[in-house]
Amino acid sequence: MSLQKSREIHLLRRPVGMPSVEDFELAAIDLPPLAEGELRVRNQWLSVDPYMRGRMYERESYVPPFALGRAMEGGAIGVVEESRNPGFTPGQHVLSMHGWREGFISNGMGLTPIDPAIAPPQAFLGALGMPGLTAYAGLLRVGQPKESETVFVSAAAGAVGSIVVQIAKAKGCKVVGSAGDDDKCEWVRSLGADAMINYKKEANLTKALAAAAPKGIDIYFDNVGGPHLEAALHVIRPFGRIPVCGMISGYNDTAPAPGPANLIMVIPKRLRIEGFIVSDHYDLMPDFLRDMGAWIAAGKLSWRETVFEGIDKTPEAFLSLFTGANSGKMLVKLT
Amino acid sequence: MSLQKSREIHLLRRPVGMPSVEDFELAAIDLPPLAEGELRVRNQWLSVDPYMRGRMYERESYVPPFALGRAMEGGAIGVVEESRNPGFTPGQHVLSMHGWREGFISNGMGLTPIDPAIAPPQAFLGALGMPGLTAYAGLLRVGQPKESETVFVSAAAGAVGSIVVQIAKAKGCKVVGSAGDDDKCEWVRSLGADAMINYKKEANLTKALAAAAPKGIDIYFDNVGGPHLEAALHVIRPFGRIPVCGMISGYNDTAPAPGPANLIMVIPKRLRIEGFIVSDHYDLMPDFLRDMGAWIAAGKLSWRETVFEGIDKTPEAFLSLFTGANSGKMLVKLT
Repeated sequence: MSLQKSREIHLLRRPVGMPSVEDFELAAIDLPPLAEGELRVRNQWLSVDPYMRGRMYERESYVPPFALGRAMEGGAIGVVEESRNPGFTPGQHVLSMHGWREGFISNGMGLTPIDPAIAPPQAFLGALGMPGLTAYAGLLRVGQPKESETVFVSAAAGAVGSIVVQIAKAKGCKVVGSAGDDDKCEWVRSLGADAMINYKKEANLTKALAAAAPKGIDIYFDNVGGPHLEAALHVIRPFGRIPVCGMISGYNDTAPAPGPANLIMVIPKRLRIEGFIVSDHYDLMPDFLRDMGAWIAAGKLSWRETVFEGIDKTPEAFLSLFTGANSGKMLVKLT
Repeated sequence: MSLQKSREIHLLRRPVGMPSVEDFELAAIDLPPLAEGELRVRNQWLSVDPYMRGRMYERESYVPPFALGRAMEGGAIGVVEESRNPGFTPGQHVLSMHGWREGFISNGMGLTPIDPAIAPPQAFLGALGMPGLTAYAGLLRVGQPKESETVFVSAAAGAVGSIVVQIAKAKGCKVVGSAGDDDKCEWVRSLGADAMINYKKEANLTKALAAAAPKGIDIYFDNVGGPHLEAALHVIRPFGRIPVCGMISGYNDTAPAPGPANLIMVIPKRLRIEGFIVSDHYDLMPDFLRDMGAWIAAGKLSWRETVFEGIDKTPEAFLSLFTGANSGKMLVKLT
């Protein structure tokens, strides 16, 4: 039956500290009949991502804050159900940024057709999508790895980190990762990581990193900030690079936490710390898809998903990102 | 009379926290007659620089720590007094890194002849020497300023900062500086700075910087670290660059001070923080001397010196760097 009512998740209020399910509400809206030039998409997969926490604050940033009482924006994969737009055909898979809703009507603007023959559709929200390109651009363009260098990746079992690990290996690097439980560490080791640190078991992360990388590290791909960054600054070698993708350890802080006490290391070690945002690197998309396709074909790249089912579970899926519940890409499957 | 005994300053013990004159001692050594191939230099000017504090710690870094009971190494300008080396002529001015001593015997290795027709000899310890090249390389190569961008410089009345200000102006940038007293601020304004902040008078450095640069800054040339860096991270615009030259605010800390609590800004603003050391940029020397010569000839570049007199005053001159006693380059003149 075609979608006439779409349920969607609204941000009800701006969370303070760790968000809770009470900060969200499930709403339903009517989808009117299509006008000329429009199409209707029924979503199959919704993406929940750590960066969304930043958009819940009311502040100026590179993207505007989420509006209250409106559907949360974000990546989603759906199928065209009906189309009065010559550019789209029923049955076609499309990627949108329209977020946490079961379906929507569009004039086609901003919808990207995806080819499920290449990979399962939801992979375009993960390894072949925004998190994959984040890993690719951050490691290769910002990090500039050279063969046989050592790359340290935090949140190495995450949607971005697990791809960084594999691209680094494909580029001939040694890889040390960190993750928050032994199962994740084992999985990332199976992806090719040379050493893994379960940071929750380590009293001294600097010592653990120095032991895992006795000759030091050359690149630290930062997904978490906090003590990981401080440990990396201690262990990194001269001319090291630190692409900063995320600092999830601080996303829910109610007061800003102090930065690394050894930041001065950037001078004697001539380090480069560089923050980046995937949307500045969309020009790499053709290279990314070509390389990822080749690595997948060569069996050098795989991924995992952690899946919640049902639109009403979306807030819970999102919140679980901050407790480390996901291995690989966190997704919501709509039923 | 020719120099037969040279007095020199030894590091007696490794300072803890702020160094004191008791950490140094004055010693005298005999200078023996010259052997074939040797020359004797009588120093006229000694350089004291903030980076020397780092070499007083016993730790691995880009240069080895100063040895205890030996003359402190560092830049000095002297005159060749006697030479049995065909490469050097009596009366010639030379730059050495042999440090805090009245004179020395050398086989000529590592001595650089300088031309006092270009500028007073001591300028080769300042604007035309290591601090000048530090400013040039750090601002132009690391900072990559574009015309009409805004550059913020801390310690703007210092040996490096005051040159950064003038190079930035020569490159068509707007400049905001900070210094620790009104006289310094006035001087740096006279060098071309568009706005100056006397940071000792400001309770909130972020507000002061935002007021001085209402459209934000594009480059922060960091000489001091600490609250200046935090303010810069708040006020800097997207794609800003932070060349880190020094973090003098922390050089005498006995326990590491926390880093900036807003370091996460590097992500949404896509900032680059990059430490550098002048010795990695000696390849720029010909460009540096050409450009500085042209700016001096065009009246676009001037400098100040703060001078202590007598080898025995060298430790005091060095210590005064940390209380902000110097305006421009801190030097010791030997009598």
